[in-house]
Amino acid sequence: MTEEHLALSSHDAHEPPADGSAVTAEGHAAHGYTDNKAAYLRRLKRIEGQARGLQRMVESDVYCIEILTQVSAMTKALESFALAMLEEHLSHCVVKAAQAGGAEAEAKVAEASAAIARLVRS
Amino acid sequence: MTEEHLALSSHDAHEPPADGSAVTAEGHAAHGYTDNKAAYLRRLKRIEGQARGLQRMVESDVYCIEILTQVSAMTKALESFALAMLEEHLSHCVVKAAQAGGAEAEAKVAEASAAIARLVRS
Amino acid sequence: MTEEHLALSSHDAHEPPADGSAVTAEGHAAHGYTDNKAAYLRRLKRIEGQARGLQRMVESDVYCIEILTQVSAMTKALESFALAMLEEHLSHCVVKAAQAGGAEAEAKVAEASAAIARLVRS
Amino acid sequence: MTEEHLALSSHDAHEPPADGSAVTAEGHAAHGYTDNKAAYLRRLKRIEGQARGLQRMVESDVYCIEILTQVSAMTKALESFALAMLEEHLSHCVVKAAQAGGAEAEAKVAEASAAIARLVRS
Repeated sequence: MTEEHLALSSHDAHEPPADGSAVTAEGHAAHGYTDNKAAYLRRLKRIEGQARGLQRMVESDVYCIEILTQVSAMTKALESFALAMLEEHLSHCVVKAAQAGGAEAEAKVAEASAAIARLVRS
Repeated sequence: MTEEHLALSSHDAHEPPADGSAVTAEGHAAHGYTDNKAAYLRRLKRIEGQARGLQRMVESDVYCIEILTQVSAMTKALESFALAMLEEHLSHCVVKAAQAGGAEAEAKVAEASAAIARLVRS
Repeated sequence: MTEEHLALSSHDAHEPPADGSAVTAEGHAAHGYTDNKAAYLRRLKRIEGQARGLQRMVESDVYCIEILTQVSAMTKALESFALAMLEEHLSHCVVKAAQAGGAEAEAKVAEASAAIARLVRS
Repeated sequence: MTEEHLALSSHDAHEPPADGSAVTAEGHAAHGYTDNKAAYLRRLKRIEGQARGLQRMVESDVYCIEILTQVSAMTKALESFALAMLEEHLSHCVVKAAQAGGAEAEAKVAEASAAIARLVRS
């Protein structure tokens, strides 16, 4: 997927339909992170690179402690990715559900809380 | 943080409920957790008991690994407390701010996200 | 875990030091942390104080986010306590077992690894 | 690097030189994990696959919460990898240093403790 494509799909997302369910060029529902898709993909690409870097370290018999240092850095990168995505989710999906109110608001808060619990415990 | 400071900070409690949100008998602003205060206090009491139990273990020269096991249990209890309080906060304060919309909604989401990041990283 | 249980478990303390490892005045087996007992107890006393501080915050209807900030601080304090105790355990108990070699070394490493896993996952 | 090759290099590692610094066919120093290199590489390969899976999810506008669930799974996989490698490190490098004793033992314990602290805090 090219940057241009990403720019397009993030452009679409700037004017969501009145019902709030933005739809990308491909017909997928857009979510909180859609506007920053390119940035999220770059972060994940870097994390994938860290996973490959770790494989090269193991293949080359790099010292255990250095490998563990890299794992910690990769874990932190993954954590930051998750926190950014979570904030986006709260700002968009949860705020929208809160405005709809009632059962939808409750369901979204419960769902977000369960996701937060998984992050805190992992 | 001193007792006095806590008393003060609870008095001018952060966001005066202009919209008629509940105020306790003592005149404090009520927050998400107010309805379940007794349950939260019981959890914290147990956690305090765990901290005292750890002191007795150290005083009695209990084996390090058993102490570490107790620390893990206490950390998990603290984590669960935080996750329960956070869910309450999202359900009440954040949902209310989302309904108010605009800058208030944004501020509450940013504040909640920062608190989540501290939990995930601690 | 009751006071009685703790007293008992410290009495028949886990591995009688057949090899002449230090025994305290009370007849308990000394562990890695014994030399720094006072410092460990002070840390735990502070952590207990944090647990009581949290109760005062909840009683005074302090804002949820401030409570969560205190929980994060307390979790970090607990984590630091555990890491200090673990380092002491590795320096003393694990090093001693490694010098004894064989099954004892293996058992101590497996036990320490399990404790580390519990800390990482909590 | 093929499984056969890995089998060879792990075979070498079974008879380390008297000075404890095993050397593989390529002349790299072997570490604790050398015997299980193929297994470690398979784990990292799966983790790399998870990073790519996340990119496909973002590209296809998958719902935020599902992405966060995958991030938690990936974090756990990374954590398990680290814990396995750490146990191997304690069993081999730290035990060997403990047997050498003195400054080397102290240095290895301090180094391992710092790595554990990074894992616990990340």
